[in-house]
Amino acid sequence: MTILDTGIKNIRNVSRCTLGEGSLAELPRLLLRRKQEHPGPVLFFADQFLEGSDSIKKLNIGPADKLIFVASAHEPSTDGIDAIVAGLHATGFQKPSCIVGIGGGTTMDTAKAVANLLTNGGKAEEYQGWDLVKVPGVYKIAVPTISGTGAEATRTCVMTNTRTGLKLGMNSDFTTYDHVIMDPSLTATVPKNQYFYTGVDSYFHSMEVLAGSYRNVIGDAFAREGLTLCREVFLSNDMMSDDNRERLMIASYFGGCAIATSSTGSCIHFRRG
Amino acid sequence: MTILDTGIKNIRNVSRCTLGEGSLAELPRLLLRRKQEHPGPVLFFADQFLEGSDSIKKLNIGPADKLIFVASAHEPSTDGIDAIVAGLHATGFQKPSCIVGIGGGTTMDTAKAVANLLTNGGKAEEYQGWDLVKVPGVYKIAVPTISGTGAEATRTCVMTNTRTGLKLGMNSDFTTYDHVIMDPSLTATVPKNQYFYTGVDSYFHSMEVLAGSYRNVIGDAFAREGLTLCREVFLSNDMMSDDNRERLMIASYFGGCAIATSSTGSCIHFRRG
Repeated sequence: MTILDTGIKNIRNVSRCTLGEGSLAELPRLLLRRKQEHPGPVLFFADQFLEGSDSIKKLNIGPADKLIFVASAHEPSTDGIDAIVAGLHATGFQKPSCIVGIGGGTTMDTAKAVANLLTNGGKAEEYQGWDLVKVPGVYKIAVPTISGTGAEATRTCVMTNTRTGLKLGMNSDFTTYDHVIMDPSLTATVPKNQYFYTGVDSYFHSMEVLAGSYRNVIGDAFAREGLTLCREVFLSNDMMSDDNRERLMIASYFGGCAIATSSTGSCIHFRRG
Repeated sequence: MTILDTGIKNIRNVSRCTLGEGSLAELPRLLLRRKQEHPGPVLFFADQFLEGSDSIKKLNIGPADKLIFVASAHEPSTDGIDAIVAGLHATGFQKPSCIVGIGGGTTMDTAKAVANLLTNGGKAEEYQGWDLVKVPGVYKIAVPTISGTGAEATRTCVMTNTRTGLKLGMNSDFTTYDHVIMDPSLTATVPKNQYFYTGVDSYFHSMEVLAGSYRNVIGDAFAREGLTLCREVFLSNDMMSDDNRERLMIASYFGGCAIATSSTGSCIHFRRG
């Protein structure tokens, strides 16, 4: 093998995607079915900028469910995640049927971390690292409201360790979302600068994969297509058209898939040759 | 929306992939873990051409497990599938922990159909059509030994109805494999003609998606990349090099993903506009 590292990779994919303009409206039906099979309340994490928005109204939050708004100015901290979990335990919130993360990378990562902690116990920093999460987290659904972070597709959730100051994720197959709803109508109201700069995040995810040391065919394939979609969007006359917002949403997802499948982000072991 | 049909799609992805040369060796470990969590024997379906091969030895088949060789000259028939299921019941074979399909499209499709019938009951032809499978099939793992069919990634298993002569699949989210092992070393011994003609199948899967009426961004993305990989393979000087066999395996998988995500193969409903 001349150009590719061919270590054996174990890849955990997002199991289900719901895609299309207006697809957020599918969420209540999905949650209802989930509750029938796995009774319990739903725990929603939503970006604080969504407070009072139509998107929140569409979530159809029931009286037993809980909605927590997430401040997205900074990435999650280990203390912040621990405080959320402690708060849930203190109020007697039972094990949820499902956790929903609706927002950007910070919100989606917060939901991932809490989902792992609710089933694994302990403190957030105990799981910062490689495959330290022992059992599957609570079943979880991502609803990205901005494109580019790739958090909807990756197997990590980045947190700043409050004690050490280091940024490190819970890198685990159990961190990957079970279901992602990709509704491009949710990014129509994102400020143009933020839309662009976050979108570029996904461009660089794909670039990093293609420039990385642990490449493989599937990671390269996701990354190449992520770049193609980004270029179509950013080189067009209207990067926020309906079509382009859908393209950038898929570019973000593919960029996340590229990271999750190609880099050390997903290997179980390497056989270097 | 000018160029793309934007119906809402519900996509069931393969949840896990194990990828890389020699990755078949991971299977016994995966099956052991599966058996620990879900006790029961393993039911293997293998292409008859693998009889006596090293690949069969690597499966590490236990005394309680069962191996059925599949004649791959023709696609599965409904009567053939029913006969397999009746045979399993007649010999008192208990519900398997896992079903493994190792071979080409016929073998992988046979495993899919039997997995659905063992949990849903009834006859194969009752499930030929759209979303007629009621409950998840037995957990199943695909090991393609030839690239191109895409059966490792699609939500259908094609069967000829013995009574009517019509070819029709069990088109269902429950038909999709849970885990796919993509080991390019398994295609090293495929006759060159067969390697090419089956590989071209995947080229046309991607072509069909891009020429189809029910396109969307994600299906197009998988298809474009499937075509790129096919072209790299077929236009090279050695289409069966180690790298190219890995590329064609991913092209086959992406071709299957393209069909499963873009066409009517995965829609839950359409909102035409």
